[in-house]
Amino acid sequence: MAHDAVLALNAGSSSVKFALFAVAAGEGLTRVAHGQIEGIGSAPHLLARDPAGGVLEERRFAAAATHEDLLGILIDFVTGHLGGRALAAIGHRVVHGGTRFHRPERVTAEVLEALDALAPLAPLHQPHNLAPIRAIAATRPAVPQVACFDTGFHHTMPALATSFALPHAMTEAGIRRYGFHGLSYEFIARRLRVLAPRLAAGRVIVAHLGNGASLCAMAGGRSVDTTMGFTALDGLMMGTRSGSLDPGVVLHLIAQRGMTAAAVEDLLYHRCGLLGVSGISNDMRTLLDSDDPLAAAAVDLFVFRIGREAGALASSLGGLDGFVFTAGIGEHAAPVRAAVCARLGWLGVRLDPAANARGEGLISAADSPVAVWVVPTDEEAMIARHTLETLQG
Amino acid sequence: MAHDAVLALNAGSSSVKFALFAVAAGEGLTRVAHGQIEGIGSAPHLLARDPAGGVLEERRFAAAATHEDLLGILIDFVTGHLGGRALAAIGHRVVHGGTRFHRPERVTAEVLEALDALAPLAPLHQPHNLAPIRAIAATRPAVPQVACFDTGFHHTMPALATSFALPHAMTEAGIRRYGFHGLSYEFIARRLRVLAPRLAAGRVIVAHLGNGASLCAMAGGRSVDTTMGFTALDGLMMGTRSGSLDPGVVLHLIAQRGMTAAAVEDLLYHRCGLLGVSGISNDMRTLLDSDDPLAAAAVDLFVFRIGREAGALASSLGGLDGFVFTAGIGEHAAPVRAAVCARLGWLGVRLDPAANARGEGLISAADSPVAVWVVPTDEEAMIARHTLETLQG
Repeated sequence: MAHDAVLALNAGSSSVKFALFAVAAGEGLTRVAHGQIEGIGSAPHLLARDPAGGVLEERRFAAAATHEDLLGILIDFVTGHLGGRALAAIGHRVVHGGTRFHRPERVTAEVLEALDALAPLAPLHQPHNLAPIRAIAATRPAVPQVACFDTGFHHTMPALATSFALPHAMTEAGIRRYGFHGLSYEFIARRLRVLAPRLAAGRVIVAHLGNGASLCAMAGGRSVDTTMGFTALDGLMMGTRSGSLDPGVVLHLIAQRGMTAAAVEDLLYHRCGLLGVSGISNDMRTLLDSDDPLAAAAVDLFVFRIGREAGALASSLGGLDGFVFTAGIGEHAAPVRAAVCARLGWLGVRLDPAANARGEGLISAADSPVAVWVVPTDEEAMIARHTLETLQG
Repeated sequence: MAHDAVLALNAGSSSVKFALFAVAAGEGLTRVAHGQIEGIGSAPHLLARDPAGGVLEERRFAAAATHEDLLGILIDFVTGHLGGRALAAIGHRVVHGGTRFHRPERVTAEVLEALDALAPLAPLHQPHNLAPIRAIAATRPAVPQVACFDTGFHHTMPALATSFALPHAMTEAGIRRYGFHGLSYEFIARRLRVLAPRLAAGRVIVAHLGNGASLCAMAGGRSVDTTMGFTALDGLMMGTRSGSLDPGVVLHLIAQRGMTAAAVEDLLYHRCGLLGVSGISNDMRTLLDSDDPLAAAAVDLFVFRIGREAGALASSLGGLDGFVFTAGIGEHAAPVRAAVCARLGWLGVRLDPAANARGEGLISAADSPVAVWVVPTDEEAMIARHTLETLQG
């Protein structure tokens, strides 16, 4: 496979992120280009960069351009940047693997059908993840495709952590806790084995704090509990999502306030979280820069909820050796990291403020019983690595 | 008020619990009788006991007997056992005081109207709590009545603990976390000041584990966090209730599986929890006696969820000094207490197995960093005390 390339795609409702990797001798992966098309359906905009951050291509498209049109343009761009390599495979982030798919899976017509059948478990995400797979299968049937699941890393969770207290038959029918952000967590687990092998063997909470946000409790690098559940709505407060919510609130909004389930879904996914509480923005940077008391209230609640859920996951782990921040907020918002660590002081977390200000690597004080790290995540690299490994069997 | 008596009522959909107290010199309260009418609407059954547990009265009634009929019979029974005392007041447990009623409140027509307006916040409970107040106001207008709120004790919770990550306007409109079991928690907080005054001043989690179940985090005897939220459905797994549930599950059951909100409500309140997971019973004694693996799975999940939520509340408290078990399961199920304490070992909980088997008072080992207690609760005594204090202004 040396002199080949692997493309990783992460497709959502209005965007496609991509990263192109060259397969180096010894089967390592080297990033060649990355970027995204955003604003699909409104103001589509392709931006591609080289590994140093330089702009390789920027284009804008008419609002009428379809997902398929834009995917074709993206594949053409990638093909033009292969530098003589062959496109060996395309890997995709797929949000839901259900109970069947734990490992990345080479896509066949049968697999695609099985993944389609999981759409009711993630109706807002799964169809958007599968559409490009189907489009590429039609236009470039010779290119192998691999589906990599956001749920997969959590298949090691014990039954206690995957079960709601629902009737046994509903649990058996798949209404259970799956957990998400698994590609990010797996990337961090592998990085931690390199950066801090002793810690990686212990009890670690990883905080993936992006526009979506969750925590994962890892024992020896394996997921034993996580804050997201059946859907990506549960757990932490997020950019626009509510996180955990008394199920009685959903019933109240429908039965007492006359909202439809679709309206409640739109509310809980798109108008809650940092945006809903602040009334200002879902962007942590904007809130940290604001002097509006509701901006501060939103940040405080975001931090409080992390503290509360970290306590819950520490209980699942039976104690805590390390805490890792990753993803947009986790990697870049030093004040949020400081506030979270202050809340976790009772667990033995002591921050080194100067290291936190620098913002990468070990940021806890030398005498901190709990090691605290900032580790940048890279879901696309994880997809590419899985894709390569799957092809190699 | 000496030579008077106070009646405490706790009315549900199919039962009324009561306790009659004599007001002793010095204004202490002495229990004279207690009991309940159960099976209202199916096979009504009055059972009244003296303080030593002896049966004072047992009667069965036709299924057609209404709530009002049976309440009249109960009041007549009580009147016959006043022993020359005057019935000074009747106190009621009312599940929801909303944001207005923090303290017990003398019932007036205006108060009753305000409490009626809160029914949409607790449609399964509030109307049943208010019906006897209204009936007694009509038939015995001279008897003062006092409403005591299950939410009241939690009014000291900080805004962070009462807020969902919903749009600010919804939070302001009352869709927030209230917490319940407040009369039980207040009783325990007062008892703990007598039993263990130093501990009562510290950081304590109280586990009210009955057919309904929740945890309360107390700092210096005041509630700072709790597991129940907007409704009594949230938090711990219960006898027949699901406890915490990804809101996405509620949306899935309605939007993807075609259930009505009413059917989901019935499911989550009446067919989940210990009953749903085991498929056998909502009664912890039955499950502990069973050798069915699903019975064990239900008990294990019940314990796991307590451990997880206790970690979350320990985070809100910033550490833990004590843990108190109360209510039916908490007072009587030694194996459940042992399993919970084993899960909380990482927090510094060390059980004294012999003391746990005895099952009252201090049950932790002498060297346990966290003191563990079993303290019987008495919501009716708390109602009577509140009622007396409210009348005395």
